[in-house]
Formats: sequence, C-alpha cells, structure tokens
Amino acid sequence: MDRHFDEELKDLKEKLLHMASLAEQSIVKAVKSLVDRQKDLAEEVLASDEAINLLEIEVDELCLKLLALRQPIATDLRFITSALKIITDLERIGDLSVNIAERALDLMEHPLLKPLIDIPRMAQLAQKMVKDSLDAFVNRDADLARNVCMRDDEVDQLNHQIFRELLTYMIQDTKAITRAVDLLLVARHLERIADHATNISEDVVYLVKGKTIKHHIEEKGG
Amino acid sequence: MDRHFDEELKDLKEKLLHMASLAEQSIVKAVKSLVDRQKDLAEEVLASDEAINLLEIEVDELCLKLLALRQPIATDLRFITSALKIITDLERIGDLSVNIAERALDLMEHPLLKPLIDIPRMAQLAQKMVKDSLDAFVNRDADLARNVCMRDDEVDQLNHQIFRELLTYMIQDTKAITRAVDLLLVARHLERIADHATNISEDVVYLVKGKTIKHHIEEKGG
Repeated sequence: MDRHFDEELKDLKEKLLHMASLAEQSIVKAVKSLVDRQKDLAEEVLASDEAINLLEIEVDELCLKLLALRQPIATDLRFITSALKIITDLERIGDLSVNIAERALDLMEHPLLKPLIDIPRMAQLAQKMVKDSLDAFVNRDADLARNVCMRDDEVDQLNHQIFRELLTYMIQDTKAITRAVDLLLVARHLERIADHATNISEDVVYLVKGKTIKHHIEEKGG
Repeated sequence: MDRHFDEELKDLKEKLLHMASLAEQSIVKAVKSLVDRQKDLAEEVLASDEAINLLEIEVDELCLKLLALRQPIATDLRFITSALKIITDLERIGDLSVNIAERALDLMEHPLLKPLIDIPRMAQLAQKMVKDSLDAFVNRDADLARNVCMRDDEVDQLNHQIFRELLTYMIQDTKAITRAVDLLLVARHLERIADHATNISEDVVYLVKGKTIKHHIEEKGG
C-alpha cells in the first residue's frame, strides 16, 4: 500500500456519497414513475439496483481492508465502523425504491385512483433526508444530523395522513381497495426510507459527539 | 486488560445470544398477545424493548473496544464487524415486535375479525429463523445459515396468502377494513423480521465461506 491513510478515507467518503446519490436517484425515479405513470423510469430503478448492491460489497471490503491494514483507533475507527452500517442502510433504501417501482408498474395497469400530492411530498422529504444524512456523515456535522432526525416526525405525519385518506377511498368503493393498498405500501416504503436516513443520522451524532441518541427520542431536538 | 481475547470473543457471543433471545421472546409475546387478545403480554413487549436497546449499545461498545485494543485481523475482524451489523438487525427486530404489540393493542378494542391461523405460523417461522441465524453465527455454521435464507421464501409466500385473504374480507365488508389493514401490517412486520434473519444469515455465509451471497439469490440453495 503506497497511498496515505487520509487518501483512503477520502476514497471511502467518495464511494459512500456515490452510493447515496444512486440511492437518492432511485427514490426520485421510482416516485416519478408512479406519479407520471412512466414505465421506463420504473425499469431504470430495477436496473440500477445492481449497481448499488455491487457498491455495497466494494465499500464493505474497503472498510475491512482499512480496519485490518491500518488498524485505526478512536475517531477513524468509529468512522469506518459507522460506514459499515451506513452502507447497509443505503442498500436497503435501494431495495425499498425497487419496491416502490414495482408498485408503480402494478398501478399503471389500472385507472388512476387519485392525483398524488402527499406521496411526492413525502418522497422529496425522504430523499433530502438521505442526502443530508450522508453530507452530515462525511462532514461530521452533528447539527445537520440532528436536524434530519427531527424531520422524521414530518414524514411519519404525512404517512398517517395518506393512510387515513386512502382508508376513505377504500370504504367508498371496494373496487379501489387493491390500488389504495398499493399506495399505502408506497407510503410505508417511503417512511422506511426516512427511517434509514434517521438511523444514519443517529450514527453521525454518535460519531461526532461520542454519545448515542439512539433510543433517546426526547433528545432529538436537543 | 487481563482477560484473553478468546474470552472476550466468548463474552461477545454470549451477549449476542442474549440479545437474540430477548428479540425472539418479543416476537412470540407480541403475536401471542394478538392471537389471545392479552393486553399484559403486549405491554411486556413494549417494556422489554428498552433492554434490547441498551444491549445494542453495550455490544456496540464492546465491538469497538475489541477492534481498537486487540486489532484483530482476518476471521476475527470479520466476526466483529459482522456482530456490529447483526446488533442493528436484532434491535430492529425488537422494534418490529413493538409495532406488532401496538397493532395487537389496537385490535383488542374491536371485535375479532377472524381466527388467526397463518399469522401465528408466520411468527413461528420468523422466530425460528432469528434463532437459527444467531446459532449459525456463533457456531460459524454456513449450512444452517443457508437453510435460514431458503426459509425466507416460505414466509414471503405466507405473507402473500394473508394479504389475499384479508383483501377478500375488506371487499365483503367495509367495516372490516381498518382491522384487516392492521392484520396486513402485522404480516408485513413479520416478513421484515424474517428479512432481518435472512440478512444475518447472509452475513454468516460470507463470514464462513468468505464469499457474499447477498444479491445472488440464485445461490441460496447452492
């Protein structure tokens, strides 16, 4: 190994940001395919999942290599073990986007149930949370990370609102049930994407401040 | 540090098994509270979540300590980084059991929609997958881990079966919709618990065989 450890860490950060940007694009494309009923976009999401999966393996191996050969301690050690966890979250965000794209493909086969307003809003929030959680990670920005955690409530609230609205459609017209359930699942996938961004952000606060905010929801705003 | 590294690894394994057994108990209690409409069991699940969360932090810190002070390489390094990922899966299994317990408490307020047959079966499968995935991990048993991955299909199939059955209830009677949706969510929580057990098992195969079966579903039976 002739490169410096700092350069290797920089490489790790770049790969993580690249993986995050692929995951973000998948969210955006999956929801756009749903809203605009564009089959090609949904298929792009399915196709790009492989790239995210391969990046997960690549970054995982890079982290292991750094742990074994550089034997980092303190902050660098925590940074690398956090990266190991974050790639799992990003990979699952990719999977959830695939789930949304699959629901979009299903829904295209049937008439539009309703114009979608809250789901795109929820998607935009979730995507921004993913972006900011990774920016917070590479810049060790605990304030931004805490801010992401706080935004999770807004996503949960939108999810409940969507849930209640779709229930009324189901009650009014039984023919709407399967489509309403599909949309309900999309909202839940987006909620889980936001949860993953929150998990990443909690790791960032731990990394920077050396204390855990996991399982201490009351501290989210602190 | 006067203890041997082997003893520390043994301690790590024991803590992981303890955490897994708490997570398993939560699954069992949450579903039993749903099936038997027992409020006290659901409340036990909510109460025990704190213990799982605290164990996650404790094991996380133990792993970091071992990485920093023992600077393990090769198999031991992979074992510890796998443990770091596994505790995240176990913690989320605990959260999902809490979600099930919350649905159970909701459903107790309303008349029984139908006798539950498939959901307890699904829960039993998921709980066994969690148990076996952790046994496979601490015993480095790749065959058992592969076996767990294969069982995930059975859980997915049950989930689809439950989904289709609940749809028929919703179509027949709009007053059944909210209860049916609650049960549908319980089935999805169980499916996600099985997914976490599958994730753990994939890590075990990687740990033992040094190759990844993640993202290579066709190899699951190999």
